[in-house]
Amino acid sequence: MTAPRIVYLNGAFLPFEEARLPIMERGFLFADGIYEVSAVLDGRLVDNAAHLARLDRSLAEIGIANPYDAGEWERLETELVARNALSEGLVYMQVTRGVHERDFAFPPADTAPTVVMFTQAKNVSRNPLAEKGAAVVTVEDLRWKRRDIKSVALLAQVLAKQAAAEAGVAEAWMHEDGFVTEGSSSTAFIITGDGEIVTRPLSTALLPGITRAAVLRLAEEAGLRLSERPFSVEEAKGAQEAFYTSASSFVMPVVSIDGRTLGDGRPGPLTRRLRDLYLEMARAS
Amino acid sequence: MTAPRIVYLNGAFLPFEEARLPIMERGFLFADGIYEVSAVLDGRLVDNAAHLARLDRSLAEIGIANPYDAGEWERLETELVARNALSEGLVYMQVTRGVHERDFAFPPADTAPTVVMFTQAKNVSRNPLAEKGAAVVTVEDLRWKRRDIKSVALLAQVLAKQAAAEAGVAEAWMHEDGFVTEGSSSTAFIITGDGEIVTRPLSTALLPGITRAAVLRLAEEAGLRLSERPFSVEEAKGAQEAFYTSASSFVMPVVSIDGRTLGDGRPGPLTRRLRDLYLEMARAS
Repeated sequence: MTAPRIVYLNGAFLPFEEARLPIMERGFLFADGIYEVSAVLDGRLVDNAAHLARLDRSLAEIGIANPYDAGEWERLETELVARNALSEGLVYMQVTRGVHERDFAFPPADTAPTVVMFTQAKNVSRNPLAEKGAAVVTVEDLRWKRRDIKSVALLAQVLAKQAAAEAGVAEAWMHEDGFVTEGSSSTAFIITGDGEIVTRPLSTALLPGITRAAVLRLAEEAGLRLSERPFSVEEAKGAQEAFYTSASSFVMPVVSIDGRTLGDGRPGPLTRRLRDLYLEMARAS
Repeated sequence: MTAPRIVYLNGAFLPFEEARLPIMERGFLFADGIYEVSAVLDGRLVDNAAHLARLDRSLAEIGIANPYDAGEWERLETELVARNALSEGLVYMQVTRGVHERDFAFPPADTAPTVVMFTQAKNVSRNPLAEKGAAVVTVEDLRWKRRDIKSVALLAQVLAKQAAAEAGVAEAWMHEDGFVTEGSSSTAFIITGDGEIVTRPLSTALLPGITRAAVLRLAEEAGLRLSERPFSVEEAKGAQEAFYTSASSFVMPVVSIDGRTLGDGRPGPLTRRLRDLYLEMARAS
């Protein structure tokens, strides 16, 4: 086997098995924390500054002081990637409000946050699913009203992803009032019959996806037609192409929604082009 | 000092400091778990069968197999109370979907759930706040759509309780579309000028409170007028009396809402009567 898996916990790089949390950890008791995931490609972090900016913003929104500045985060992530000899996959980061006797209100201001980081090896760039295209199902969006905050209160997303797993597909798209909000761990895009790339505008109803922003930027630079507007489940099922984006799937073609095949049932040309553009950007980062 | 604090973790009674969780614990990563709190009075559990029934129902709703039957839960709780020589306070129980490499969908079906229990000493029956009455503030209800499930995805409740703490009051009542849903960790009741006890009917918008149910039963037995109907924030501010219920506060009189004093600013007579009836029931249980 390879070298032991190393994780980061509160200032120390430790063997995975030794990283343990007290039961009074507020992430465990209250989902009182924030997380981020950055992809790693060719051993390098992808679009990491944007992930760290979102982490900082999420923490501020729930009143947790960011324990590190962006430079320190990146230094720690880079060291973790190196210690695990990770070539491709992701770095997971979680910050919670720390450890304190259970009580809903915030603990004393000098309570140290809990910081956990680990890596996962994953075939991101040559994911076989991207060749074939993913099927998705739609489920009701059960989440809270501040989905712009990337909190670890993820039970609704767990149930959505499980619904996808039970349907034998890779992702669930969530909907509210008939309109798609986003995927359980991704941003949803469709491409209309006349080549318009559509995704829901940012609001508290969805997470401001980092990969979403990059794809919009790349599409604009390529002169493609974009529209940030809500789209319904019905419109999605009749779309020419569709895809979803996330740090760990990049641009993932969607070939069916709730069993309805899109186009010819294979990843569409515009989607493939956007995936290639994203991979090129990611490799250059 | 007294004997060391003992907690329960996955089949073992351990000193508090030794109870540790792996970082891949799904409660920590995903809020993928359920909890319950039972009060302890005179060393005995209060209305515990109802709490265990709700625990069982919550677990079933999110697809976690209940690791113990009610008899075994009660045996473990009783042993924990005894080991901590707890006379008055509460027993906290949490069950999560267990430990597995991070992935949103459920882990393999044979993954053992994580079970944590601990006690907290608390003056429940002679809580000084109950003599004086509690002030509450109102905040927007940000929670997800399945509030009937007692999950540990509690970030919205943490933020609500913190808003109360920052306002210098004990509890926050949450509202949605102008109507009170419930408190951040309690059920909200008002009493109208003509003596009608009002609380919101059960639905997915609020937790089916165990103390709520007991108080409704006791009020009915006492021949008091009851109405299960939604009430607005405005109606609450104009109420004659108000109170909230929870396993750890029993029946807590409310004497002001958002700074508006109710009645004469002291716990109302019907509220005090209900608190006495509840305490009598709790002591007899």
